[in-house]
Amino acid sequence: MKKSEIAGMIDHTLLKPAKKSQIRQLCEEALKYSFASVCVQPDYVKACAKLLEGSNVKICTVIGFPLGENTTATKVFETKNAIKNGATEIDMVLNQSWAKGNEWKKVEKEIASVVKAAAGKTVKVILETCNLNDKQIVKACEASVNAKATFVKTSTGFGSGGAKAADVALMNSVVAEHGLKVKASGGVRTYKDAMDMIANGASRIGTSNGIAIVEGAED
Amino acid sequence: MKKSEIAGMIDHTLLKPAKKSQIRQLCEEALKYSFASVCVQPDYVKACAKLLEGSNVKICTVIGFPLGENTTATKVFETKNAIKNGATEIDMVLNQSWAKGNEWKKVEKEIASVVKAAAGKTVKVILETCNLNDKQIVKACEASVNAKATFVKTSTGFGSGGAKAADVALMNSVVAEHGLKVKASGGVRTYKDAMDMIANGASRIGTSNGIAIVEGAED
Repeated sequence: MKKSEIAGMIDHTLLKPAKKSQIRQLCEEALKYSFASVCVQPDYVKACAKLLEGSNVKICTVIGFPLGENTTATKVFETKNAIKNGATEIDMVLNQSWAKGNEWKKVEKEIASVVKAAAGKTVKVILETCNLNDKQIVKACEASVNAKATFVKTSTGFGSGGAKAADVALMNSVVAEHGLKVKASGGVRTYKDAMDMIANGASRIGTSNGIAIVEGAED
Repeated sequence: MKKSEIAGMIDHTLLKPAKKSQIRQLCEEALKYSFASVCVQPDYVKACAKLLEGSNVKICTVIGFPLGENTTATKVFETKNAIKNGATEIDMVLNQSWAKGNEWKKVEKEIASVVKAAAGKTVKVILETCNLNDKQIVKACEASVNAKATFVKTSTGFGSGGAKAADVALMNSVVAEHGLKVKASGGVRTYKDAMDMIANGASRIGTSNGIAIVEGAED
């Protein structure tokens, strides 16, 4: 794959505690490499929106992150607040307790509430696949389809495991026919890792190693 | 220390993904042992308030948990929402990026905003001491004093480290004279662990091992 092509699939991500100077660098790198987005914590959305004004780089942020155990009201507020601050992509964490208890109707209703709050902006539903079995991954994907999310996403990067090719393939098998896409995130560190995810159906990669991935590409 | 005395210092905690049945059990145990509180995720506050209605067990929840990188507006909303749902104690996570960047005025202002939103309810500021050096721990305690919080608290239990006796002693040395208390949390598993924290100035213990701790006490 060409460098420019894979760069356009990468959410250039910094979710650990970071100084302003690191966020500035993240944005400069995103501009230089033409990454799809920068993915940052909500407290840095406003700064990134200013730094990236007028560019094609999207501002992605995380909602209810990384545990997903906030109330729906708080997730809805946080989504609206993020969009007000300049976010254009919303990566929300699925309520892990409801998934554990197989309360899929509640999961679906919550995702739909966030999709509504996002008012047409891209919504990615983070499943945190390391906490789920295959049956639960399918259920979470179905809930995301029904709630009209844009993407399902594997991992927060803060859980016990990251993206696995088999999970990406399973997620894609459920959502692709409904027009949803798959984002692979968590532990995707090399060009080979990224290509493995893409071969299994991912169309977006969340990583803090975007530059290394692009540098590993062909041209 | 007597069993009843140490039980009254324990926030009986379940912050991992949990089914309703586990939350019900947590509340039943809190009633049986007369723990200070149950400490749960925001999505379970309403259920706990109902289960513990009319008892002396407080309902503690976590705000901006566990990374603390939400906007102040979201932390304020989440606090008000939790209190509306029945929370009586608010454990908020300090913004880790601002701590890393030594932006202590912003830290103080955010804590003050949450204290105001909590409208007289107990507010504990989680420092996540494993991310801070001693100088930053002191600064975080001073910000909590200035912002009129009720407690400073060591850890989320989701970071790279938990409560250390030396950190508890350091925190207590800053806040005690101003009337604030210290909560030790993260990795406190035995009666001996708890007594070590208390000897160093903790007056509240956050733990998912409350029963083992009480059973280890003297009478």
